[in-house]
Amino acid sequence: MEYRKIKDEDNDGGTVSNDIENLRGIGFSGVASVSNVPPREQAKWKRKTVVTVALTFLTSSQAILIVWSKRAGKYEYSVTTANFLVETLKCALSLAALARIWKSEGVTEDNRLSTTLDEVIVYPIPALLYLVKNLLQYYIFAYVDAPGYQILKNLNIISTGVLYRIILKKKLSDIQWAAFILLCAGCTTAQLNSRSDHVLQTSLPGWIMAIVMALLSGFAGVYTEAIIKKRPSRNINVQNFWLYIFGMTFSAIAILIQDFDAVMNKGFFHGYSIITTLMILNHALSGIAVSMVMKYADNIVKVYSTSVAMLLTAVVSVLLFGFNLTLAFFLGATVVSVSVYLHSAGKLQR
Amino acid sequence: MEYRKIKDEDNDGGTVSNDIENLRGIGFSGVASVSNVPPREQAKWKRKTVVTVALTFLTSSQAILIVWSKRAGKYEYSVTTANFLVETLKCALSLAALARIWKSEGVTEDNRLSTTLDEVIVYPIPALLYLVKNLLQYYIFAYVDAPGYQILKNLNIISTGVLYRIILKKKLSDIQWAAFILLCAGCTTAQLNSRSDHVLQTSLPGWIMAIVMALLSGFAGVYTEAIIKKRPSRNINVQNFWLYIFGMTFSAIAILIQDFDAVMNKGFFHGYSIITTLMILNHALSGIAVSMVMKYADNIVKVYSTSVAMLLTAVVSVLLFGFNLTLAFFLGATVVSVSVYLHSAGKLQR
Repeated sequence: MEYRKIKDEDNDGGTVSNDIENLRGIGFSGVASVSNVPPREQAKWKRKTVVTVALTFLTSSQAILIVWSKRAGKYEYSVTTANFLVETLKCALSLAALARIWKSEGVTEDNRLSTTLDEVIVYPIPALLYLVKNLLQYYIFAYVDAPGYQILKNLNIISTGVLYRIILKKKLSDIQWAAFILLCAGCTTAQLNSRSDHVLQTSLPGWIMAIVMALLSGFAGVYTEAIIKKRPSRNINVQNFWLYIFGMTFSAIAILIQDFDAVMNKGFFHGYSIITTLMILNHALSGIAVSMVMKYADNIVKVYSTSVAMLLTAVVSVLLFGFNLTLAFFLGATVVSVSVYLHSAGKLQR
Repeated sequence: MEYRKIKDEDNDGGTVSNDIENLRGIGFSGVASVSNVPPREQAKWKRKTVVTVALTFLTSSQAILIVWSKRAGKYEYSVTTANFLVETLKCALSLAALARIWKSEGVTEDNRLSTTLDEVIVYPIPALLYLVKNLLQYYIFAYVDAPGYQILKNLNIISTGVLYRIILKKKLSDIQWAAFILLCAGCTTAQLNSRSDHVLQTSLPGWIMAIVMALLSGFAGVYTEAIIKKRPSRNINVQNFWLYIFGMTFSAIAILIQDFDAVMNKGFFHGYSIITTLMILNHALSGIAVSMVMKYADNIVKVYSTSVAMLLTAVVSVLLFGFNLTLAFFLGATVVSVSVYLHSAGKLQR
């Protein structure tokens, strides 16, 4: 098994259950661990905090840009071309980062761009999974409406937790599992509105597609972590470059499948605006932040980070767009907060 | 301080954090504790289980009777006269139980009905607190509508936890506190409906009254536990008799204050039906079950028991009355279930 090796080789990690303190500015045990651990551990802890906070910030601003773009009434561009540009930008940014590193440190075994078939063969898999998931997304709307899909997307949380356990063989304590169930329930509660109950009338094919999509998305995330952590000393920018090269390839295929006519008739950049440009920039940066979180933390931190971002988005939307917060939002936010605390309090003693 | 003494004298208790396993048929550590503990502890555990299950069952059937009586369109009796009959019935049932005990065991120091001023002086306090709370209830509806009040009543959960800690000086672990916050959030989530958001527009006087009522209700519950546990060897039926004698007195006062004219003009039993009779019987039995839970378990078990009963009621209402369960209900029920698990998993090691 490919995956079993990963766990053995991953001596750099092993701090799974310490990760969530990073999300909480003033962590209970987080503060203690900073003062008690050696400088090398402290540096790691800082790096994890920075990437996690960056991901949370970028994810919230992403959602806010989406709301903004919808309110501005401009949503007429081809999503597939935007995805292609995001992948291209991520690739370019990784190369730029590598160029700086080569200049300062020289080319080493760990930061050289050239690779072996053995290393690169697994890199297309996450991009392929996301492609399949994005194509399925067009069909699920035959069975589920948009608010229902928003609710069903929270199944990703559970699928990520389960696949993280099965594929990466990392353990969560019973309390942390309870916290994970609460995270899913809390996020869903926070998003409840008067139309949410429709989701209970989802037909069996709708449920199956939602579950398959959650598994694809969870598997892509966990598999990316497996790939990146398999070679702990390999420079993250090289790993990203190869991930994004295949991302570019598959998003180009998606353009051909879904938007070939639109691009041919109206042009590649039809419907682009300043907001579209900002969204592409934001998606590229969040994509890189996700990779960094995979390298220096894990999928569990990623899920908590994006869930907290969802709550931040709602609060910021109140200030920016005059949205009203619902009672369901306060209750969901309470449950998510308790979940973050429990994930930290329930960490395995080892 | 009266309260400080209680904790010192309560050597019979000390099993606070073991209690919740009783709620879970197949408890994780519950099963282990049954097989490992001596027979005396096992008997205690069984007694706690029986009173807790009885309370859960009686509370659910109470709520179902209320729904039934509303659907039958008969709700025209004076609530105060029904309360008086409930107290009288509880008094009579306690006396009947005592008569049986006197016959089999003879009259002892612990089961004699006569009492001292020192023992009896605190017994009117819970009944007085409930009277004040019930009178306030008539005024709060000037500030909050009925569905809003239903939501605000969940503040009782928090007030009970806080007063339990402060007055009875019993400790909950951090995980158990987290579980208690989740219980409150979960119960509220399960009750959400399209009109719930009104509660966020509650004015300051409305909030203050709701908080005062939650504190009165929590204080009455915790104080009752303090009174009953102060004399562990005293027979519970004697303690109940004295509690209910004052309950009768204060509910008679409530008739005079609120329903004097209605009773004079239409008679004491006006508007009574078979359902009303069943409700009075049920209230009397649940009242006795609450006292038993206070004696053999505690207020925390009581709160969990009545919360689980709320969920059971909803499920039974689906079967009996064809109600629909909402997504919010499923999410709230999930959070409450995780809370029950966490209360048990998070018990203090001692």
